[in-house]
Amino acid sequence: MTVTTDVRDTIAALRRQVADLHAELPRNQLVVWTAGNVSARVPGRDLLVIKPSGVSYEKITPDAMVVTDLDGVLVDGELSPSSDTAAHAYVYKHMPRVGGVVHTHSTYATAWAARGEAIPCVLTMIADEFGGEIPVGPFALIGDDSIGRGIVETLREHRSPAVLMRNHGVFTVGRDAKSAVKAAVMCEDVARTVHISRQLGAPVPIEQHHIDSLYDRYQNVYGQEPAK
Amino acid sequence: MTVTTDVRDTIAALRRQVADLHAELPRNQLVVWTAGNVSARVPGRDLLVIKPSGVSYEKITPDAMVVTDLDGVLVDGELSPSSDTAAHAYVYKHMPRVGGVVHTHSTYATAWAARGEAIPCVLTMIADEFGGEIPVGPFALIGDDSIGRGIVETLREHRSPAVLMRNHGVFTVGRDAKSAVKAAVMCEDVARTVHISRQLGAPVPIEQHHIDSLYDRYQNVYGQEPAK
Amino acid sequence: MTVTTDVRDTIAALRRQVADLHAELPRNQLVVWTAGNVSARVPGRDLLVIKPSGVSYEKITPDAMVVTDLDGVLVDGELSPSSDTAAHAYVYKHMPRVGGVVHTHSTYATAWAARGEAIPCVLTMIADEFGGEIPVGPFALIGDDSIGRGIVETLREHRSPAVLMRNHGVFTVGRDAKSAVKAAVMCEDVARTVHISRQLGAPVPIEQHHIDSLYDRYQNVYGQEPAK
Amino acid sequence: MTVTTDVRDTIAALRRQVADLHAELPRNQLVVWTAGNVSARVPGRDLLVIKPSGVSYEKITPDAMVVTDLDGVLVDGELSPSSDTAAHAYVYKHMPRVGGVVHTHSTYATAWAARGEAIPCVLTMIADEFGGEIPVGPFALIGDDSIGRGIVETLREHRSPAVLMRNHGVFTVGRDAKSAVKAAVMCEDVARTVHISRQLGAPVPIEQHHIDSLYDRYQNVYGQEPAK
Repeated sequence: MTVTTDVRDTIAALRRQVADLHAELPRNQLVVWTAGNVSARVPGRDLLVIKPSGVSYEKITPDAMVVTDLDGVLVDGELSPSSDTAAHAYVYKHMPRVGGVVHTHSTYATAWAARGEAIPCVLTMIADEFGGEIPVGPFALIGDDSIGRGIVETLREHRSPAVLMRNHGVFTVGRDAKSAVKAAVMCEDVARTVHISRQLGAPVPIEQHHIDSLYDRYQNVYGQEPAK
Repeated sequence: MTVTTDVRDTIAALRRQVADLHAELPRNQLVVWTAGNVSARVPGRDLLVIKPSGVSYEKITPDAMVVTDLDGVLVDGELSPSSDTAAHAYVYKHMPRVGGVVHTHSTYATAWAARGEAIPCVLTMIADEFGGEIPVGPFALIGDDSIGRGIVETLREHRSPAVLMRNHGVFTVGRDAKSAVKAAVMCEDVARTVHISRQLGAPVPIEQHHIDSLYDRYQNVYGQEPAK
Repeated sequence: MTVTTDVRDTIAALRRQVADLHAELPRNQLVVWTAGNVSARVPGRDLLVIKPSGVSYEKITPDAMVVTDLDGVLVDGELSPSSDTAAHAYVYKHMPRVGGVVHTHSTYATAWAARGEAIPCVLTMIADEFGGEIPVGPFALIGDDSIGRGIVETLREHRSPAVLMRNHGVFTVGRDAKSAVKAAVMCEDVARTVHISRQLGAPVPIEQHHIDSLYDRYQNVYGQEPAK
Repeated sequence: MTVTTDVRDTIAALRRQVADLHAELPRNQLVVWTAGNVSARVPGRDLLVIKPSGVSYEKITPDAMVVTDLDGVLVDGELSPSSDTAAHAYVYKHMPRVGGVVHTHSTYATAWAARGEAIPCVLTMIADEFGGEIPVGPFALIGDDSIGRGIVETLREHRSPAVLMRNHGVFTVGRDAKSAVKAAVMCEDVARTVHISRQLGAPVPIEQHHIDSLYDRYQNVYGQEPAK
């Protein structure tokens, strides 16, 4: 790999960011043991930064992160990439606006995924962040393109940045790694709340035009203006 | 805005208090990510102190807090006010004895809100703090007076300092910001306990005269005498 | 009150112990806000040490603890005793072997209490610690002897050191304050496990002679020999 | 006992490792109070290292750990061994490839155990780690070989490193103590997720050939290559 100094600096910054964001997963109770991973695209290059395989959360440092190409082949780093790298790589290859990907087996979202059931849009927070239901992707075995294809084909037909992979867990995407982590946190939060609501009856649906209006406002107005 | 030195000191103290109280929200597991906010009225002035929009809980400092008038218009501070400021402001404008407002999407309370179902008064702790059921307010879109009006109209007809806004989350009020935070913590606690109790059968109702007697005692006797 | 130096030392030690044990309540997620309290009998004296009313867990220090007689009347300390002091005092007065009392509204135990339903003995841990079901006491209002009488009358007919007071919460007793705290922790743990087990079917009962054998062994064999 | 310097060093290292691994139990919310224990076989010797009985998790140090033979008789250490030592010892005696054993009463796994119901293999994570359902062992009283025999007879007929002992709790095994702790963490995680999934319907089964393929891959490919 020939990389300019600029790209080296970018990768160094992404290693730090990706390592730091992994701390959000146990902090938000999205993972146990070494399960779960965060990656970031290297902008303008066919590269990604991801967690190595089977490394515990206390041992995650910027230096431990690995760099692969968009076929999941190791380009830089001393450890084997996460066994989910192929799925991350497939998403970056086929969704050019995605800059970050997160994978977890967070409890409530995975419980919906085990039933193969989408999370209905019955909270304003779901309308805000997901723009409608959180959809279910197919059952897919690890080891080839199946998981990546399942993610991409499902997300293309929805506004949601999260997909529940059947019998497996959650993948989320975002314009950067932090947005993908936020989507993973929000996905588990609404999966839990809707589950609990459904245990004692039927949540009231939100009308489609209200969902559209909430989604539009949140995507365009919420938060601080970006720094100029 | 022309403010005297006294008001400046009061606002500085409220910025500290409001910033500190935000730490109670994640500590009591009432919020994830940047959701949820606490505000305080500036006594004797048509002003309030509130959290800025989309700022993470670790970055909340007294200086980051913002001051708005009771139409939610920014008066002091460098960041945009919380997107829920209009609802807080409406409450202060129409409920003159309220000195603090809290908004969360805490899990169990929001689960009741998604079904549009009030939390029945089946625990002595609910009688103590809420004086009866915790009521449901209407579905309301963000962006105008709807949420504020829904809160005020619902709370006016109940002793409860908490209202479950349908498909949305919880608003609580108090004589000051700390009391409103306490109501938010208690609301989630009883929402959880009654939910769990109902999962395996019907909680025993408490007779109305017992509710009245518990509420009266708790509001007048509990806690330490205020310092003289 | 005339107290000898010995009693003063005992009380100082109990203040420390009771203050320290309060930290176990939030640590084991048995309480929110200022709810819940631990007390200890002053051995050989008609006195008890207890938490003051409405004080937050971070502000609990040995000096903040208060001493009352067995009618709940303040004997030493600067703050008002817990509003539950009368119930603790009644227990010490009528159960001479009890050296510690704990009161919480822990979620799962209180959920059983709200239905007025005893926790059945379907775990070896329940047989070990409680010797049978965890019973339900009557609905009782705060303000006179009712709660204390309800606790004592219920516990007298069971081996259990814990009683679920209807629509209210849990009281546990022990030979000292630490044992009562252990019973409160165990009570919530088994209340949670049996609740969850029951959600998807019927737990298998344990035969009475097995319960007897487990209880006998645990009360006499478990743990380290006391220091000589 | 005559031990060489080598064995002394091995035992010292195992005392540290076993003491450290106990911290994973409360950290992963698998235990309350003093319940739960981890042990390790001393390789090549008929000895094991285990937690003493009734000692709290904050007081666990390498020096507090005790060494027993494979009949559970104390060989080295100042405190009585865990009351579960006989069960651990029986497993080491009859399963020569097992190097670590863990026992907990973790909530969700114990809830399945109370119903005497195996956890079905409806998540890829269950296929990966357990190779099929997590089976139920018999009801057995503490005090003789019953628990140990129940564990060994059940595990021999399954690929699972975890067994749910009826009305009691969980035992897990591994090639070393860390692997057994991992199995205990994973067992509770999948017990929780499948429970929650089942609350609102039926999880989709995974076909047997997919289970076999996932198990085979995970046991042989996942993680980093062992250091050479």
